[in-house]
Amino acid sequence: MNETEAAPEGYLRVETTGPFMATLGPLYYRPRDSGLIIALRIAEQHLNRRGIAHGGMLVTLADSAMGMNLARAREPRLWTVTTSLSTEFIDAARRGDWVEAHVDILKLGRRLAYANCYLMIGARRILRASGVFAIVRPARPDEVSEG
Amino acid sequence: MNETEAAPEGYLRVETTGPFMATLGPLYYRPRDSGLIIALRIAEQHLNRRGIAHGGMLVTLADSAMGMNLARAREPRLWTVTTSLSTEFIDAARRGDWVEAHVDILKLGRRLAYANCYLMIGARRILRASGVFAIVRPARPDEVSEG
Amino acid sequence: MNETEAAPEGYLRVETTGPFMATLGPLYYRPRDSGLIIALRIAEQHLNRRGIAHGGMLVTLADSAMGMNLARAREPRLWTVTTSLSTEFIDAARRGDWVEAHVDILKLGRRLAYANCYLMIGARRILRASGVFAIVRPARPDEVSEG
Amino acid sequence: MNETEAAPEGYLRVETTGPFMATLGPLYYRPRDSGLIIALRIAEQHLNRRGIAHGGMLVTLADSAMGMNLARAREPRLWTVTTSLSTEFIDAARRGDWVEAHVDILKLGRRLAYANCYLMIGARRILRASGVFAIVRPARPDEVSEG
Repeated sequence: MNETEAAPEGYLRVETTGPFMATLGPLYYRPRDSGLIIALRIAEQHLNRRGIAHGGMLVTLADSAMGMNLARAREPRLWTVTTSLSTEFIDAARRGDWVEAHVDILKLGRRLAYANCYLMIGARRILRASGVFAIVRPARPDEVSEG
Repeated sequence: MNETEAAPEGYLRVETTGPFMATLGPLYYRPRDSGLIIALRIAEQHLNRRGIAHGGMLVTLADSAMGMNLARAREPRLWTVTTSLSTEFIDAARRGDWVEAHVDILKLGRRLAYANCYLMIGARRILRASGVFAIVRPARPDEVSEG
Repeated sequence: MNETEAAPEGYLRVETTGPFMATLGPLYYRPRDSGLIIALRIAEQHLNRRGIAHGGMLVTLADSAMGMNLARAREPRLWTVTTSLSTEFIDAARRGDWVEAHVDILKLGRRLAYANCYLMIGARRILRASGVFAIVRPARPDEVSEG
Repeated sequence: MNETEAAPEGYLRVETTGPFMATLGPLYYRPRDSGLIIALRIAEQHLNRRGIAHGGMLVTLADSAMGMNLARAREPRLWTVTTSLSTEFIDAARRGDWVEAHVDILKLGRRLAYANCYLMIGARRILRASGVFAIVRPARPDEVSEG
């Protein structure tokens, strides 16, 4: 599968994410409402020994998707640091699954931001995550915060 | 830095962890009390764009360390699936830091197991995580569960 | 304010909730979709020393509302025990506020159930909670599980 | 059982806690290290319909115990607001049980504080809770923050 096949139509590559996110492989986004759906295709490298996506990898996706959405929630872009994160693992993701992170910003305060995220495969929710994020400072205009 | 320099004395390489954990690079363990300390050296590949360890990477370490300790908590070894996970991010980890996961099994029931984990750099706690784990079945004797 | 004034039209009293829920005062419900909205009016007895609803009291409402919705999600009614709970406190509730618990069942398995709950004052979300619940056994037909 | 019988030797009554904590009945404390153990005796009014302590009541105790310990962690006393809270319910508490909250302050920053709490019956842990707390301002010297 080449890269253009990796994502459904309408998705674009997230270009800049930092070294750790880069090890997850190509990440995609699509505008939705006021935010972004962040997504990736589950590949061999994301699996644990049982052949399903590693929980830590899914948490990484959810945390980063919340950070990216918070970054864009104000002008100039926000720079946030994850303070707390809670997750329930609802269902497994398997090789080839297209996993989308749907983020809902619950509150955007002066110092703290709150967000909830569902990872979805089609209409099926496989993970719920939410976090409190400390707003460190407005980011530089060219930055995308990745959690 | 070569591999023998990567870990303090007394640590051994974790040999089998599955594809996703392998992307994190070499993972080490050291027996402690009835369990294992799991540890790694923060490298370039673990960083986010701000130059500190990505939160998702630290959660992955904590989740895996809890899974590995639970796997060994009974004979035959247990196979667990993370059901819920909660984390507070207390402090940052930087390139070169040796991060140790100290796991405390809170309860080992018939169907569910509970564990808490502190990630530590020396005596400093940088992350707290805890989870509830569903016990799927005893694992085969040669397996190490990695969360 | 007498009792009939306490709840908006369309709400009915929850009759049986156990001793601790009874100390919270009258609790109300209203059918919505396949579940129930559970609600109460913030009174003097719910406040902390700063004059806002005590966080523990709001968590109690959310936890109980999830239990009540799970109880009704199957026939015969389910008896669940809360295994883990995570909460973000988004905004304060004050005396006189009508607080509604909106529950979303994320998964109903054979052994475990997952639910998310928003506490709302009008259209404003003041608390998010989610939990994993162990399904202990089907409850007797006349029982309502309260978490 | 009169009040002097209610608590083991060495415990003193917490005098001021606000209306909601007052509905829980007498709360006790005992100095330990740099902090306080907060405790209560499980009574009829704390139970759910199954005859065990209601989960929300135990969360309330843990949350308040963390707030009280944080309040005393600096001079002048701190006033904190719970931002996020996560809990695992490890075991049940029954009528007559003496439940102690053991709090561990993980970090006390300028804006945020982190704490972990185990509820214990004797040497047995029945609940783990942790939270992130926003430091609102130093409290007046005569105040005890109750979460």
